[in-house]
Amino acid sequence: MSGLIAQGEKRLVLVTGRAHPELAEDIAKELGIELSPTEIRTFANGEIYARYDESIRGSDVFVIQSHPAPINEWMMEQLIMLDALKRASAKRVTVVSPFFPYARQDKKGRGREPISARLMADLYDTAGANRIMSVDLHAAQIQGFFNGPVDHLFAMPVLLEHFRAKLANEPVTMVSPDMGRVRVADIWSDKMHAPLAIIHKRRDPRVANQVSVHEIVGQVEGRTCLIVDDMIDTGRTIVKAAEALKANGAIKVVIAATHAVFSDPATEILQSDFIDEVVVTDTLPVPEHKRWDRLTVLPIAPLIAQAIRQVFTDGSVTSLFDGAA
Amino acid sequence: MSGLIAQGEKRLVLVTGRAHPELAEDIAKELGIELSPTEIRTFANGEIYARYDESIRGSDVFVIQSHPAPINEWMMEQLIMLDALKRASAKRVTVVSPFFPYARQDKKGRGREPISARLMADLYDTAGANRIMSVDLHAAQIQGFFNGPVDHLFAMPVLLEHFRAKLANEPVTMVSPDMGRVRVADIWSDKMHAPLAIIHKRRDPRVANQVSVHEIVGQVEGRTCLIVDDMIDTGRTIVKAAEALKANGAIKVVIAATHAVFSDPATEILQSDFIDEVVVTDTLPVPEHKRWDRLTVLPIAPLIAQAIRQVFTDGSVTSLFDGAA
Amino acid sequence: MSGLIAQGEKRLVLVTGRAHPELAEDIAKELGIELSPTEIRTFANGEIYARYDESIRGSDVFVIQSHPAPINEWMMEQLIMLDALKRASAKRVTVVSPFFPYARQDKKGRGREPISARLMADLYDTAGANRIMSVDLHAAQIQGFFNGPVDHLFAMPVLLEHFRAKLANEPVTMVSPDMGRVRVADIWSDKMHAPLAIIHKRRDPRVANQVSVHEIVGQVEGRTCLIVDDMIDTGRTIVKAAEALKANGAIKVVIAATHAVFSDPATEILQSDFIDEVVVTDTLPVPEHKRWDRLTVLPIAPLIAQAIRQVFTDGSVTSLFDGAA
Amino acid sequence: MSGLIAQGEKRLVLVTGRAHPELAEDIAKELGIELSPTEIRTFANGEIYARYDESIRGSDVFVIQSHPAPINEWMMEQLIMLDALKRASAKRVTVVSPFFPYARQDKKGRGREPISARLMADLYDTAGANRIMSVDLHAAQIQGFFNGPVDHLFAMPVLLEHFRAKLANEPVTMVSPDMGRVRVADIWSDKMHAPLAIIHKRRDPRVANQVSVHEIVGQVEGRTCLIVDDMIDTGRTIVKAAEALKANGAIKVVIAATHAVFSDPATEILQSDFIDEVVVTDTLPVPEHKRWDRLTVLPIAPLIAQAIRQVFTDGSVTSLFDGAA
Amino acid sequence: MSGLIAQGEKRLVLVTGRAHPELAEDIAKELGIELSPTEIRTFANGEIYARYDESIRGSDVFVIQSHPAPINEWMMEQLIMLDALKRASAKRVTVVSPFFPYARQDKKGRGREPISARLMADLYDTAGANRIMSVDLHAAQIQGFFNGPVDHLFAMPVLLEHFRAKLANEPVTMVSPDMGRVRVADIWSDKMHAPLAIIHKRRDPRVANQVSVHEIVGQVEGRTCLIVDDMIDTGRTIVKAAEALKANGAIKVVIAATHAVFSDPATEILQSDFIDEVVVTDTLPVPEHKRWDRLTVLPIAPLIAQAIRQVFTDGSVTSLFDGAA
Amino acid sequence: MSGLIAQGEKRLVLVTGRAHPELAEDIAKELGIELSPTEIRTFANGEIYARYDESIRGSDVFVIQSHPAPINEWMMEQLIMLDALKRASAKRVTVVSPFFPYARQDKKGRGREPISARLMADLYDTAGANRIMSVDLHAAQIQGFFNGPVDHLFAMPVLLEHFRAKLANEPVTMVSPDMGRVRVADIWSDKMHAPLAIIHKRRDPRVANQVSVHEIVGQVEGRTCLIVDDMIDTGRTIVKAAEALKANGAIKVVIAATHAVFSDPATEILQSDFIDEVVVTDTLPVPEHKRWDRLTVLPIAPLIAQAIRQVFTDGSVTSLFDGAA
Repeated sequence: MSGLIAQGEKRLVLVTGRAHPELAEDIAKELGIELSPTEIRTFANGEIYARYDESIRGSDVFVIQSHPAPINEWMMEQLIMLDALKRASAKRVTVVSPFFPYARQDKKGRGREPISARLMADLYDTAGANRIMSVDLHAAQIQGFFNGPVDHLFAMPVLLEHFRAKLANEPVTMVSPDMGRVRVADIWSDKMHAPLAIIHKRRDPRVANQVSVHEIVGQVEGRTCLIVDDMIDTGRTIVKAAEALKANGAIKVVIAATHAVFSDPATEILQSDFIDEVVVTDTLPVPEHKRWDRLTVLPIAPLIAQAIRQVFTDGSVTSLFDGAA
Repeated sequence: MSGLIAQGEKRLVLVTGRAHPELAEDIAKELGIELSPTEIRTFANGEIYARYDESIRGSDVFVIQSHPAPINEWMMEQLIMLDALKRASAKRVTVVSPFFPYARQDKKGRGREPISARLMADLYDTAGANRIMSVDLHAAQIQGFFNGPVDHLFAMPVLLEHFRAKLANEPVTMVSPDMGRVRVADIWSDKMHAPLAIIHKRRDPRVANQVSVHEIVGQVEGRTCLIVDDMIDTGRTIVKAAEALKANGAIKVVIAATHAVFSDPATEILQSDFIDEVVVTDTLPVPEHKRWDRLTVLPIAPLIAQAIRQVFTDGSVTSLFDGAA
Repeated sequence: MSGLIAQGEKRLVLVTGRAHPELAEDIAKELGIELSPTEIRTFANGEIYARYDESIRGSDVFVIQSHPAPINEWMMEQLIMLDALKRASAKRVTVVSPFFPYARQDKKGRGREPISARLMADLYDTAGANRIMSVDLHAAQIQGFFNGPVDHLFAMPVLLEHFRAKLANEPVTMVSPDMGRVRVADIWSDKMHAPLAIIHKRRDPRVANQVSVHEIVGQVEGRTCLIVDDMIDTGRTIVKAAEALKANGAIKVVIAATHAVFSDPATEILQSDFIDEVVVTDTLPVPEHKRWDRLTVLPIAPLIAQAIRQVFTDGSVTSLFDGAA
Repeated sequence: MSGLIAQGEKRLVLVTGRAHPELAEDIAKELGIELSPTEIRTFANGEIYARYDESIRGSDVFVIQSHPAPINEWMMEQLIMLDALKRASAKRVTVVSPFFPYARQDKKGRGREPISARLMADLYDTAGANRIMSVDLHAAQIQGFFNGPVDHLFAMPVLLEHFRAKLANEPVTMVSPDMGRVRVADIWSDKMHAPLAIIHKRRDPRVANQVSVHEIVGQVEGRTCLIVDDMIDTGRTIVKAAEALKANGAIKVVIAATHAVFSDPATEILQSDFIDEVVVTDTLPVPEHKRWDRLTVLPIAPLIAQAIRQVFTDGSVTSLFDGAA
Repeated sequence: MSGLIAQGEKRLVLVTGRAHPELAEDIAKELGIELSPTEIRTFANGEIYARYDESIRGSDVFVIQSHPAPINEWMMEQLIMLDALKRASAKRVTVVSPFFPYARQDKKGRGREPISARLMADLYDTAGANRIMSVDLHAAQIQGFFNGPVDHLFAMPVLLEHFRAKLANEPVTMVSPDMGRVRVADIWSDKMHAPLAIIHKRRDPRVANQVSVHEIVGQVEGRTCLIVDDMIDTGRTIVKAAEALKANGAIKVVIAATHAVFSDPATEILQSDFIDEVVVTDTLPVPEHKRWDRLTVLPIAPLIAQAIRQVFTDGSVTSLFDGAA
Repeated sequence: MSGLIAQGEKRLVLVTGRAHPELAEDIAKELGIELSPTEIRTFANGEIYARYDESIRGSDVFVIQSHPAPINEWMMEQLIMLDALKRASAKRVTVVSPFFPYARQDKKGRGREPISARLMADLYDTAGANRIMSVDLHAAQIQGFFNGPVDHLFAMPVLLEHFRAKLANEPVTMVSPDMGRVRVADIWSDKMHAPLAIIHKRRDPRVANQVSVHEIVGQVEGRTCLIVDDMIDTGRTIVKAAEALKANGAIKVVIAATHAVFSDPATEILQSDFIDEVVVTDTLPVPEHKRWDRLTVLPIAPLIAQAIRQVFTDGSVTSLFDGAA
């Protein structure tokens, strides 16, 4: 028969945006490879330029980008990187966005609002992403916003391991900081064999206007309270919760969260006396000036590296992806 | 200039599938119009045939279908109706599915599962739907599964009006039957000026195997407990919850739910002595043999009719659509 | 160069819906492999759930489903299976639907009708199918309804082999049961070296109203008449045809059809004395209670298995696919 | 409320390619309007340029083009006209292609063939067509190749009227020239209250190689034979059929066909003595040098104009579109 | 006939992002309407939120956004605004981006680069834009990056009017500052009835390394040199050009540019003695601190307002859009 | 695990249309393979039919077609070839169109024009092309018209090599024949270390009406003028330019162009005494009767073959694709 026959082969390539290069390097190290060298620049008027130094033809490319502030900058950078990959004949492109951008705008709370999390999924698709990998989506339904495979990783095992060791001999109560996070706390409660408490923020019927009280549903007196949330943004809700717990007799309050958004004034108020420890992962960069002694930052790179390896080798990684809320 | 000028005009047309024709007729009556006559048949081998008797060229068509069992039958019927509309030059087509099919499969709980709610949104889109109208989506994120306008209506005002009148002088406590519905109960709690309780199902650590206990978080003794949920399927969770509430001293247990799925053995076990009243709407058909004396079925047609009118006239209907969980 | 190199490899995976598992097992046996274990359930309200037990990442998957009644149920099940495959990173997905659903609604006979066969092709595409494999499409044009490769297999060789042996020494006449099937009968006529007759149903001009007569065009007296059709649904047309043939002097009437739809009252009336033998394939399940002594069911699995093998290995299978009507 | 309100209005615009401008002018005349002036040129290297002289913003545009040879030239011209309309903000664009290009390549007869009729539908869609209007599609399934409304017009009433008057007192037999056209002849047979005959081309078993005989199924002796077909291309099949009919005793042979493709040597051999009259419509141009005394060309413009008017005014035109084969 | 008839009507709505609200207000004023009130906020972590205060159902919406630095911020804001419009049932959405973002990255200069201008067009499309309006695209081919109508406006008439008055009695020479802009200068040369000169930047063959000289092709001695460009970014090229012109005997150098990007150090170096006047439009905001006495900023709002009015009323606006380079 | 494992493998297949088979054969020879045998026919009415004789399942196919007149014929042939490949399960399809059809209609010069170059890219995409390979696009922005990889090859090295040898000892001046080609001439000027001159066509202000003069900007007296252009169509511009150069003292005028469109009267007028040599490549066929003694045709096949080999083997071919204008 006419034509030319060649052996099939596949190549894994990692590239990274500029938002959190340390994470990308850690992932590469875990995989025992180098990041593919990439030139990214911002021009005088703010436009971003990206170009790959090596051929990526026919490669299985993973585009790592984290999404701290300025989040729109990093999102657009990642989209431009995707466009270049599409036009350079990459075979398959997986977006690795550990903290999914705009995850909290996942529905219309009122009329004439956007659903920005869906928009981000659409933008990824348009720019050329075939797959998405992310950690602890704010709502698991966001998987359904993308019309292709979404590898939804869970940081819980990483955090759990830390607390099982640390709080082994303490009387732990799992605490949900508000109504929207009860399901996650419930799963932790099961894994930690600990009872559950919920903080219920409501208007005080005795006082006029918008004054709210933090009612605690469940037993916290004399106990170590472990508050779990998917992210800490300004930290205000968490600190109010910790204060209420201590006021109700908790002897220790520790916080576990996957995404350290740490918008102002988070790093300042989280150092409050009400809080005994904060544990997060580095899905978002936590620069030195945002760290303090009672903060622990666990590395997320091993989890992501393991997932990338499995995706590349078509392995069965359900164990990594199961157990979602 | 060459050509022919004509006056613009728009025509509202309502058509219905065979799952719940009474609802469609009620909606038409509310709007003061007739349903557009449609021929729908099932052939010997189960294939469905649909044809519109009147022209629908250039019309603004609303395709009403409810989704009780056999749900796949009714979904496919609606898709076939959409295909016929697309090919018959309808100008705009809105799917009116008060109970969104497969809404509970809205995420991958484990690897290699479908996200069937997203699939349904995609099927609607493919068959020719431009817009979707639904009532009390199981998760508000489902709005983001469709790449176009979704009119998300809330039955709460309808149900609320009933209970505000009925329970005016009773000591009400709002109850969430499980962890996943806490947010909805919280909103009701606010509207009813009533405290909140949560039923927490967990494994009994003292007994081996999968035995679970229903723990009640919050005060229910001596109170009228109003359990709210978006739907009642087999009723098992609800009945267990009611039993636990009565066991904990509740003097009355009433249930409010939008969607009366009522799969077996719902209608039998809901007549339990633990339950004093069940109130639902008719987003799904509730045939005579599934009704009993302590069941109240509130009409949803006025709400849907009002929304259709506003959509047709480009009115501002945010008031109808706001207040989502 | 940076990155990681691995050897390319491809994996064939067979999965099946619940409509006709025996066929899938026969195909797997022909290929010498096992079906990939799959969990499929129907919930109380009729919603279907599907999940693959083993990883299908990077696989070349064939999704076998037959489409007897309840046809919409089986179609939706297959769509849900496709959605799960797409989200689980299957590399290529081929729908294997031996009897293409809704194939007879392949055009608008009148205004405001759907073209449901096109809709089915679109639904397959939307849910994630890359390719379609089917047997004896009602109209070959249905291939053009799908925007990708369609492997159109022909059962004629299977049926032909049976009749060549069986009717070797008889004076055979090929018969088309109506005007729409003449082309197929013509091809058979060529292959069997037999003359052609056509049954022409028309209104009797001598009698008022819709009374029709079955006129036979061609010689049938003293001959063995072999009626060919792509499917037998209720069987009424076929039985009327057989009766007319016998009335016109045929000494034997045998029927060949690919798809045994056998809607009521097919199995009853096909046992009529006018019909000496019926031969079908098992593209659709033919349960024991729908079988009788003068019915022969030929296995279609060898043909499908051969096609799957060729598709997987990129072989040249034109010989299988050629010879269409 | 902010903003500016204006009255809705719609404008019908007709434009035409250069393949058959007389037809477009006839249609415009029937509608009582002018064709919108359009500049179309072919550059030295064969590239086509098109530009509209008047604004077509917001208009309901019908792009009339016929498809005689050189058919690819006219197809590309029409696609370029569509692109310009899309970019010039036309509101809705309907392709009017009375003879659908490549209609005969509507399926894969063998492996590795195109389905060019589907390709043409896709090209129309890509270039910007929202709707298609055509006359007597070679296969009605072609409607399903386009993912939008297809107005399928039938020339039969036009032709029928001619023959009912002309052959009122003759013993007519309807004749299908081959197996593929039997259904159309059958419908005519019903409308003309005339019996049916079929010409069956098969290999002569007594002679070696590809020698075929034209067998006539049905009674033609002493009768006026009316052969119907959707198109006449080279005319060879028709002339052979006419010869066979006369040889079998037909006293008169007349031909009815919608599309006068008239490729060489059609106009020459159709003047054969075996053929008494040929009647076609002008869906394709029939220039003077392709006309002869026994040829009648009926105007198709009234039918198309009526359909355009109804489409523009959202009228009910099912009567025009019904009655398909 | 069943259904409800209403009069068609269309509503023009203007909304604006936060990049250059003064421009939007000027456009609204020209149109005699108010901007539709819109709530836009940036959250602590940089995510943007947008919501329309009034219904925009069925409206013809124009989304005005300018694209100065931080350009990615404003682009993402505009995309989010589009998503909200799509989900809120706007009838038609036109992006008004006077300075098209990333217009200079309109091709791959080298391998593995993005084509970011095409990406921006795709992002607009994905987020819900039906049409685009822009002024003086860097390359006219960008129109072809969007698969829909692009209203390409030209600022030349605005600028031309200024210079025809101002330089009426001076010996003007049109100057292209580099090879890429020669066509534009050529058109101006024609309109101003002035000769053309070109500045040709090339490596000095006498000196090693990348030292370049500015060669002037054409006569400039004793003349008023009018340099035209589509934008001024850092101003370096322009200033070098002016210096070269003065060095070659030009007695006056004036600059005309549509887009005042004015990245650092533009505003500083443009005040050089080599430059006698700079004239720009306000397609981009020119804040007070970026203005100086020899800078003239001409309003672009009248041009855009006129175009919006014509688009809304389906008028013929070719005069506005013609004359492109 | 269930399933069947096979080794991955890839096959390169070359097919060609009928426009310029010699080029395809030259490319195949360079690659050391055979063209895959293909049957292509034109039917009596001008419709084209294509079929591949060998299986192309799973292959990496390159579809070579050149685009001389009749350009629409060859374009449609290529589209039909693509459709057949898509339906025959080709794995990846690259269009190889050395002279991109309709490249000059790459923008709207006036309102209501098409952007036919974008349309061609869209048609390729619709018919099934995954990638495009072309030589010297009229505007590099055309790369952005296709939503996938475009391999943009440059003939400059081929032409440059010729002239560096031939004009080594002559005083060369690079000449741009009009304003639109200045950038290309500028690049050549750099590569040839030669000064630049530009021909500026403008209306003569002294004479009424459309009389234009060819002004030469730059020094040409006593020099060898090398005019570069991407294509020669009718040749009129080039000949006028050559005449003007000679009139201004040039001692020799040679022409370099990639695409020899050579529409009438090109071959006649290019033999003018003003022109000393014309050098083109064979991206378009140059039949014997269009050749003359002072014409040199350089082979483009080596460049294209090298690019195909690199694309097939996922090599780094940036060197081939860099250096664009």
